[in-house]
Amino acid sequence: MSAIFKLTYGLFVLSAKDGEKDNACIINTALQVTSNPLQVSVTVNKANFTHDMIMKTGEFNLSILSQDTPFEVFQHFGMQSGRDVNKFEGDVLRTDNGIAYIGGVSNAVISVKVNKTLDVGTHTIFVGEVTEEHVLSDVPSVTYQYYFDHIKPKPEATKKKGFVCKICGYVYEGDTLPEDFICPICKHGAEDFEPL
Amino acid sequence: MSAIFKLTYGLFVLSAKDGEKDNACIINTALQVTSNPLQVSVTVNKANFTHDMIMKTGEFNLSILSQDTPFEVFQHFGMQSGRDVNKFEGDVLRTDNGIAYIGGVSNAVISVKVNKTLDVGTHTIFVGEVTEEHVLSDVPSVTYQYYFDHIKPKPEATKKKGFVCKICGYVYEGDTLPEDFICPICKHGAEDFEPL
Repeated sequence: MSAIFKLTYGLFVLSAKDGEKDNACIINTALQVTSNPLQVSVTVNKANFTHDMIMKTGEFNLSILSQDTPFEVFQHFGMQSGRDVNKFEGDVLRTDNGIAYIGGVSNAVISVKVNKTLDVGTHTIFVGEVTEEHVLSDVPSVTYQYYFDHIKPKPEATKKKGFVCKICGYVYEGDTLPEDFICPICKHGAEDFEPL
Repeated sequence: MSAIFKLTYGLFVLSAKDGEKDNACIINTALQVTSNPLQVSVTVNKANFTHDMIMKTGEFNLSILSQDTPFEVFQHFGMQSGRDVNKFEGDVLRTDNGIAYIGGVSNAVISVKVNKTLDVGTHTIFVGEVTEEHVLSDVPSVTYQYYFDHIKPKPEATKKKGFVCKICGYVYEGDTLPEDFICPICKHGAEDFEPL
C-alpha cells in the first residue's frame, strides 16, 4: 500500500456535448479551487474521448455520484469508450448548457465553463466557473474508499492466470503482462497491476 | 446546501521550508493527477504564508491526516498564520528534502517537487512529481465530511449576535457582516457566512 493511495477522492460522471454527440466518463478528480468566483477543477486523462470534447467545447457537467450508485453505472460510463458506443440513449436529462447529466444516482450536478487548462502530461487540468448547480438528493456522496468497500464486486476465487489492475479491477489474462501495457479502463500502466 | 458542498475532500497538512523557516497550513485540495510520472496537485490560497514559500522554493510535503487527528491540530496549523507564530518547535520530523512533516496523526507523507503552477485567481494550483513517500499508519484518512461529523466541535447554544463561516466554523461577532469580509481562518468571503 503506497502513501499515494491514502489520498481521498469522490467519484463523478464528467459529461460533455459536441454538436449532437453526448459523452461522459468517470473521474475521481473534481475540486472546488476558489469560492470567489466559484471555480471547479477536474483532471482528465487525455486518452478519454470526453477530454477531447471538453478541450474543443470548453464546457462540462459534473454529476456527483452518491453511495446509491450501482457498479453498472461505473461500468457503463467508465469501462467503455464513447468512441465506440453511445453512452446516452432515450430521454436524457440536460442542464441549461445543453449538456447531459446523470439523475437518480447523483446527489448534485454542477455545470462549468472552462477558463484555464494546464497540461500535466498524460492528463489535463481544466479549471472553470460554475454556471449552474442543482442539489438532486440527500444521499451522501460516494468516496473512492466506499466504492472499493461496498460497490466494486469482490474478485471471485479463480484459477485464472493473469494480472489485476489495483486501480480499477480490470483483469488482464495471460502469463506475462507487457511492460508498456496500459489499462484499457482506467489508463494506468503496468506498474499498477499485480498477479491474480 | 449547495451542490458544491457535495464534493469529497481529504484533509492535509501542507508544509514547506524556506531557509531555516518551517511552516505549514491545512488544505483539502490534494490529488494524484498522473501516475506516470507520479504527480500530485495541491490548490493553495495565495493568502497563506505557505503558498509564498512553495512559490519560492518549489517544494512541499503533504502529510495525509487520519481520522485520529484531534481538532487542536486543525487549530494549530489551520487557524493561525506562520507569519505570526512558529508552527514547528522542538524536535521536528523531516523527509529527505529537509521539509517538516506531521507524524502521529498522519497516515502517510508525500514529498513533492513542483514543476508547474496555474494561477486561478485567489489560489494557485501547484503540480509536481513525488520524490519520496512513506506510509505512517493504517488509520483511515480523514475526509472533510468525517471532520464535520466527528472532529469539529459542535456550536454551543449561544445568544451571541454574529455570523458563522459555513466552511470552517469561524464566528464573526457583530450585528452586521461587512460585505467584503474575508474569513481569517479559511479565507472564504462573506457569501459563505450565515447568521448565528
